[in-house]
Amino acid sequence: MALNPTTKAQLMGVSTATLCTALFKRGLRNQFIQDVHPLNANLPNMVGEAFTLRYIPAREDLNPITVFLDRNHPQRQAVEQCPEGAVMVIDSRKNARAASAGSILVTRLMVRGCAGVVTDGGFRDSPEIGAMTFPSYHHRPSAPTNLTMHQALDINVPIGCGDVAVFPGDVVVGDREGVVVIPAHLADEVAAEAHEMTAFEDFVSEEVLKGRSILGLYPATDPRTKDDFAAWRRAKGR
Amino acid sequence: MALNPTTKAQLMGVSTATLCTALFKRGLRNQFIQDVHPLNANLPNMVGEAFTLRYIPAREDLNPITVFLDRNHPQRQAVEQCPEGAVMVIDSRKNARAASAGSILVTRLMVRGCAGVVTDGGFRDSPEIGAMTFPSYHHRPSAPTNLTMHQALDINVPIGCGDVAVFPGDVVVGDREGVVVIPAHLADEVAAEAHEMTAFEDFVSEEVLKGRSILGLYPATDPRTKDDFAAWRRAKGR
Amino acid sequence: MALNPTTKAQLMGVSTATLCTALFKRGLRNQFIQDVHPLNANLPNMVGEAFTLRYIPAREDLNPITVFLDRNHPQRQAVEQCPEGAVMVIDSRKNARAASAGSILVTRLMVRGCAGVVTDGGFRDSPEIGAMTFPSYHHRPSAPTNLTMHQALDINVPIGCGDVAVFPGDVVVGDREGVVVIPAHLADEVAAEAHEMTAFEDFVSEEVLKGRSILGLYPATDPRTKDDFAAWRRAKGR
Amino acid sequence: MALNPTTKAQLMGVSTATLCTALFKRGLRNQFIQDVHPLNANLPNMVGEAFTLRYIPAREDLNPITVFLDRNHPQRQAVEQCPEGAVMVIDSRKNARAASAGSILVTRLMVRGCAGVVTDGGFRDSPEIGAMTFPSYHHRPSAPTNLTMHQALDINVPIGCGDVAVFPGDVVVGDREGVVVIPAHLADEVAAEAHEMTAFEDFVSEEVLKGRSILGLYPATDPRTKDDFAAWRRAKGR
Amino acid sequence: MALNPTTKAQLMGVSTATLCTALFKRGLRNQFIQDVHPLNANLPNMVGEAFTLRYIPAREDLNPITVFLDRNHPQRQAVEQCPEGAVMVIDSRKNARAASAGSILVTRLMVRGCAGVVTDGGFRDSPEIGAMTFPSYHHRPSAPTNLTMHQALDINVPIGCGDVAVFPGDVVVGDREGVVVIPAHLADEVAAEAHEMTAFEDFVSEEVLKGRSILGLYPATDPRTKDDFAAWRRAKGR
Amino acid sequence: MALNPTTKAQLMGVSTATLCTALFKRGLRNQFIQDVHPLNANLPNMVGEAFTLRYIPAREDLNPITVFLDRNHPQRQAVEQCPEGAVMVIDSRKNARAASAGSILVTRLMVRGCAGVVTDGGFRDSPEIGAMTFPSYHHRPSAPTNLTMHQALDINVPIGCGDVAVFPGDVVVGDREGVVVIPAHLADEVAAEAHEMTAFEDFVSEEVLKGRSILGLYPATDPRTKDDFAAWRRAKGR
Repeated sequence: MALNPTTKAQLMGVSTATLCTALFKRGLRNQFIQDVHPLNANLPNMVGEAFTLRYIPAREDLNPITVFLDRNHPQRQAVEQCPEGAVMVIDSRKNARAASAGSILVTRLMVRGCAGVVTDGGFRDSPEIGAMTFPSYHHRPSAPTNLTMHQALDINVPIGCGDVAVFPGDVVVGDREGVVVIPAHLADEVAAEAHEMTAFEDFVSEEVLKGRSILGLYPATDPRTKDDFAAWRRAKGR
Repeated sequence: MALNPTTKAQLMGVSTATLCTALFKRGLRNQFIQDVHPLNANLPNMVGEAFTLRYIPAREDLNPITVFLDRNHPQRQAVEQCPEGAVMVIDSRKNARAASAGSILVTRLMVRGCAGVVTDGGFRDSPEIGAMTFPSYHHRPSAPTNLTMHQALDINVPIGCGDVAVFPGDVVVGDREGVVVIPAHLADEVAAEAHEMTAFEDFVSEEVLKGRSILGLYPATDPRTKDDFAAWRRAKGR
Repeated sequence: MALNPTTKAQLMGVSTATLCTALFKRGLRNQFIQDVHPLNANLPNMVGEAFTLRYIPAREDLNPITVFLDRNHPQRQAVEQCPEGAVMVIDSRKNARAASAGSILVTRLMVRGCAGVVTDGGFRDSPEIGAMTFPSYHHRPSAPTNLTMHQALDINVPIGCGDVAVFPGDVVVGDREGVVVIPAHLADEVAAEAHEMTAFEDFVSEEVLKGRSILGLYPATDPRTKDDFAAWRRAKGR
Repeated sequence: MALNPTTKAQLMGVSTATLCTALFKRGLRNQFIQDVHPLNANLPNMVGEAFTLRYIPAREDLNPITVFLDRNHPQRQAVEQCPEGAVMVIDSRKNARAASAGSILVTRLMVRGCAGVVTDGGFRDSPEIGAMTFPSYHHRPSAPTNLTMHQALDINVPIGCGDVAVFPGDVVVGDREGVVVIPAHLADEVAAEAHEMTAFEDFVSEEVLKGRSILGLYPATDPRTKDDFAAWRRAKGR
Repeated sequence: MALNPTTKAQLMGVSTATLCTALFKRGLRNQFIQDVHPLNANLPNMVGEAFTLRYIPAREDLNPITVFLDRNHPQRQAVEQCPEGAVMVIDSRKNARAASAGSILVTRLMVRGCAGVVTDGGFRDSPEIGAMTFPSYHHRPSAPTNLTMHQALDINVPIGCGDVAVFPGDVVVGDREGVVVIPAHLADEVAAEAHEMTAFEDFVSEEVLKGRSILGLYPATDPRTKDDFAAWRRAKGR
Repeated sequence: MALNPTTKAQLMGVSTATLCTALFKRGLRNQFIQDVHPLNANLPNMVGEAFTLRYIPAREDLNPITVFLDRNHPQRQAVEQCPEGAVMVIDSRKNARAASAGSILVTRLMVRGCAGVVTDGGFRDSPEIGAMTFPSYHHRPSAPTNLTMHQALDINVPIGCGDVAVFPGDVVVGDREGVVVIPAHLADEVAAEAHEMTAFEDFVSEEVLKGRSILGLYPATDPRTKDDFAAWRRAKGR
């Protein structure tokens, strides 16, 4: 199921906070990846379908530096297979004591046209990654090679990342606050609703800045609010 | 008890580190709110009296999105009631898995003339809040609506925030390092002492930059130090 | 054993990530100090031999503010004794609830020509320290005076810092990602190897940016890669 | 609202696990107090309505040992006011570094006919409390007096305990596994349903011990299961 | 690869501590499952090949109570498929906030002749499980149904459990201390070596109890130790 | 300074909870070792002077299994040097991922007449240690050899253990609740005061069990309490 271009465009213009509220209304309370942060906080939203990579703890005898001589090593294969427009999401078991990946692999993802990369562990070469115009999210910088703690095992299976269930094809959205995971079947309706909510929140923000009380305004329990919002939309063309 | 203007002016010019030392000398070892950080690190100090908001864990049936239709919801009431010049301090039980509040409420606090906002959880819309010229402090960004984890319960009662006891009316000071809570009855004397200490520390910093040893200088066990400091004060008019 | 100037120069030009890989190849998996961060992220590498300071928990009766009247207090002595070119590494037991040191002591270290300072706790006056052109690393800002939680005890003994064993004389390297500890006897060979690895990684990064697959390139299992790298070195003079 | 005797009797005979499932079916996923353990694991269930006590962090100047000279100290008042049949639930902010209470207060609760005591911190005199025939639950033993870390503040207000919202009057049930909090308005129906579920689970356990597969049995998707259960109930008189 | 009966017999008679040392000598430092505990501390060793079950975080819409109506639900299938003599090892991502399984499923495993069950989360019905003569290990009791936090996903794939890599077929040994995972290809040699080490340690323990110094005895650097041990073996027939 | 026999006898008869209160009255709030537990909960108090052992993180090349061939290895030397009547206290940096020691070394301490052993990490062979009539305290069982994580470094220097400062010669008291550290110079007076407090608490416990209110009784603000206590002491001969 390819990501609908309208949906993608809408998701480029909304915040993870607004998306979380739309998901909350549908009974989904746990879709925000906990405690991951953008390496580059000056980028537009990251939007793409999840392509996952699963790590397990590294056993020393299975993870000498020579494993990468194997072209079929799952970490390297994942980087070559992650589709254009997709977001690679890595299950690092919330362990940032060693890296999940480094700048060379992240560069390759960028060059291949992927939409971004997320780990609930840490990246090495984080200053270089943070300087790229490619959305990447992790818990904290971590210089040790992934082999120290992680063995890449599975490509594109359901995983956990930052306490969130991530299924291949789920729609992953990142902003400067963090990353939210939208179940694939809800992506269109959640994007549309969040797009509408964003217009309302922009209106509310303007009103609040002008000095209006939030009571009756947010939420719009005062009938005047709805009228004012309608007028605002007309004036703004939104 | 209103905050003395001299005290406020002095607190605008000292650091939380210096204040912690003044409190330590009075037997208060635990007044620095642990692990909260400014969203905007380019602002002057935050100084104001504490106005508190207490959250408990959210029970699902009591916290649908519709609770905000009630104008008397404690979170919204708190935002409208927080006095001009006061700092809203939120007890989020050190839980940042869902937001304590978002940019609209924080904007309302700013517009109403409050002095700042602190939570030991996280804010949503953190990029927007970080762009405001309004002092705000949290543990980390958190997009999910507060209803996911938190139920606002009490306004202006004694709370814990980041392992610190906060009583309404305590004087809250934030700088780029973090936030300290000064018991109300000590505010004037602690501010005055910190003001003096700051002059001495500025003198010491200059001396150290010139190459002077810290031994005998900091603290001023060498009598020459006191003379030099007196001369420095005269020269600087401090 | 003084740090070899060639080694130092090489270490100024490589990353902690590359060094961790060189150490991993030698069976050393645990030399990256966990969860410490640079206060100033715009500095060249920090390179120097470890000069250590060990803290234990503070007992209240032994740590009144007056202890600093003693010129022989170990914290103050450490700051005066840390050799030029050395990195002071502080064992704060990963406790950032009170400071490990503040800007005056860090300034003194800078003026005395030390190479940097690292704690697995936190610094007070962190905004001032972050503005200095002196490499400093900690876990998070912490305003309370060190006496609140820490008693300086030993100077230049083996310690733990961020879960890493640090022996006096080990070579400590910090970059914008974090800090790695190289056992003294390995410093020359690890520096040389990392220097070579850095050339190769720079070549690989360029190739990947041009669109080349990582398979066969990184690591260089494709013979063509070695030829290309040799040509690149000649062209670049590296 | 007094606890219905039938409800109480039913709750004495069911497990916290079964109650959690009944609550889960009603959308309440977070009613099990996290990480508290019985001090005496050889007692019948604890069942009673919640009577709460709220602690905030102790400020040193407000919590000398002499505070207990005040007969109105909230901790002592709470112990004297907790109704017969009620469970005292203490919000210790999950902090077991100092005690929540000790054996003398717990003995007083027992003698006064209370149903039990729960803290998400720790008790001092835990060996003595563990030897009493009085249900008590905590995180871990903690010898330091509560004044070290905790200031008792409020009696019988809504609190958090072990990440669960606890409202006065909620029905609190403890078994050897832990403690669950049932919202007051659901107590009768949840108790009745859990009572029925327990009969079924006892039947299933017997069948499984006899060698029957869980498929079709648990849950009872095989029609034969329902017949067998009906026969079992007749035979057992349940 | 079936577990060699001699190997199994040897593993029944050695401790996890001795096995960890044998693994350490082979460069495997991380095979002890961290922070899991036996529910019944009065049982012989658990020995069997790993049969794994992988959980990911539960998404609310995919995990209503009705999912168990599906006979093919992976958790239920795993319980029916786990081979006789095998140990079921569950990857619960170290999350004990909801159960990994309860007494009915554990009873079924026991009746089916499995060797034991391990989770790095928690079991519900833990008092009942603790009363069974079936080795089971978890982090702590946890009453909430697994659906609250966990979705069973994969059967018999490599997993992490308590920070240890567990591959299907690895040999899992539990004693009253905890659980160790022996890579399948090392099981025979590690068991044999641990069997020998155990004889020596039993000898050493007897000698130490008689008052002999550990120096020269443990390890046996004093030649007399080897003679004494040889005599002891002859006398004991070991 | 040898431990006064009267002091020792008094400390054998009081609880760590009572001692913590006596220390609290002297401004010492942090003398209870956090989160350590007795392996054998059926023993009399442990009382002795602290003899310390300091561990740092293990570096792999310095900690092969062969290090124990050196009779001067600090861990082994410490076990042979710990004086009769002393308590060995080990600084394991609160890391229980590998053992601090095992049953053979603990047996040696017992046979040599030491008073007990404490680590803020874990012991291996914990079931055997728990069966000994020798007081031992740790955080949790841990099978991996200490070399996996710990390098023994210093004998009988000041250390931290469970967040408490421990100086050689401090008086260490353990009961079934945990372990408290009494500064050497306070041991006599704290023991005497705790001995008196214990008599009063025993009296209070009896009164409370008889049904008396704690108000006025505990503390003894009601004059009648003092009279009753005096009578009780005469009757009991205490």
